[in-house]
Amino acid sequence: MLVYEGKAKRVYRTEEEAYRIEYKDEVTAGNGEKHDYMTGKGRLNNLISSGIFAYMKKHGIDSHYIERISETEQLVKPLDIIPLEVVVRNYAAGSIVKRLGLKTHQPMTPPLVEFFYKEDALGDPLLTDDHIAMLNLASVAEVAHLKAQALKINEVLTAMMKEMGLSLIDFKIEFGKDRDGVIMLADEISPDTCRIVDMESKENFDKDVYRNSTGSLIDTYRAFYKKMEALI
Amino acid sequence: MLVYEGKAKRVYRTEEEAYRIEYKDEVTAGNGEKHDYMTGKGRLNNLISSGIFAYMKKHGIDSHYIERISETEQLVKPLDIIPLEVVVRNYAAGSIVKRLGLKTHQPMTPPLVEFFYKEDALGDPLLTDDHIAMLNLASVAEVAHLKAQALKINEVLTAMMKEMGLSLIDFKIEFGKDRDGVIMLADEISPDTCRIVDMESKENFDKDVYRNSTGSLIDTYRAFYKKMEALI
Repeated sequence: MLVYEGKAKRVYRTEEEAYRIEYKDEVTAGNGEKHDYMTGKGRLNNLISSGIFAYMKKHGIDSHYIERISETEQLVKPLDIIPLEVVVRNYAAGSIVKRLGLKTHQPMTPPLVEFFYKEDALGDPLLTDDHIAMLNLASVAEVAHLKAQALKINEVLTAMMKEMGLSLIDFKIEFGKDRDGVIMLADEISPDTCRIVDMESKENFDKDVYRNSTGSLIDTYRAFYKKMEALI
Repeated sequence: MLVYEGKAKRVYRTEEEAYRIEYKDEVTAGNGEKHDYMTGKGRLNNLISSGIFAYMKKHGIDSHYIERISETEQLVKPLDIIPLEVVVRNYAAGSIVKRLGLKTHQPMTPPLVEFFYKEDALGDPLLTDDHIAMLNLASVAEVAHLKAQALKINEVLTAMMKEMGLSLIDFKIEFGKDRDGVIMLADEISPDTCRIVDMESKENFDKDVYRNSTGSLIDTYRAFYKKMEALI
């Protein structure tokens, strides 16, 4: 049974206590303004996301990921998704540059954590901790936990990218709660949800090549996966 | 010497250790999109703001206000203004309704404090505590102090409005630091910077009559001052 269809994925309930995620051959940008079908994208995102979640687990970060079960599908733990997009920034890029008048790639020290309300109709607005409490999206203790967890994930992901000769600019993650109320990393981690550049050439290894029409997304993701393969 | 000219006020350095604020006969809305001259507005804002600051002082809230020195002028302590607009909301109204999909006049319990970056060129963007630290606008301890102070001011101002038969929907304040680093309420408090409605008729007693072209601003401010006169 289909329980959720997003821009790049479908989520199905399975017979067992699990959800099945199907990665689609679709790509969108600018809240759906740009939209394309790309053969092989679902397979690549599934490979990359599965590999990153496996790497995370090896380094102490639990997630909803159970296993990759086909070219385009993963089995994951069924979670209630907290409607927050958690963004971690090591360097300024994208929306924050215009919003706060920063310089692109200006370092954020310490890394900056931002919360956005996952609500397409409102354009995913920025939220303060007090907004999150007011909207009953998470308790004060949960927000503190999400922030700490996001920073821990940043450390592991930054180290992983460094091993690949890449620099992690920023990324977006989501969290969910299992039936016991335990909060866990959910959704996906891939070049769709991260900004990553080559440490030497400053070349993008992420969806910005599609957003800004500067190269082939499939070639970029394939090259990214090639760098990753040795690690997983 | 003129040290600052804003939309509705001019600030001059004086011979003594003080600034002189001149309230102008100008009114703007929508970040300057709407703009008018109104004879008597400066005088009314000066009367109201002086009265509110005096009421605040009587109820334990220090501010930069020293005294009213003419029809349109106040003497104030010279402060370094912290570039934050601190907004306190008792009920949802204005920008937050659209931004977070709330209902107009939906109660905020507890009252909500928001910080905006006082930077016209960026359109005064919303800031989280972490943004404020990152931009070096105030320390973590200072932000906590500003928030606590804003809520205390809200209590006093809400009580004052209640004595006038009015309900305080929201308001914007600014703070500054004196030469010893002591943080103090600054700028002005008036129907220019508050949303206030009559508890019975729900009629606006604030700049919304100008923003939404629903009545005469001068008549409204005069009626507001009339309700206030008995208290000060």
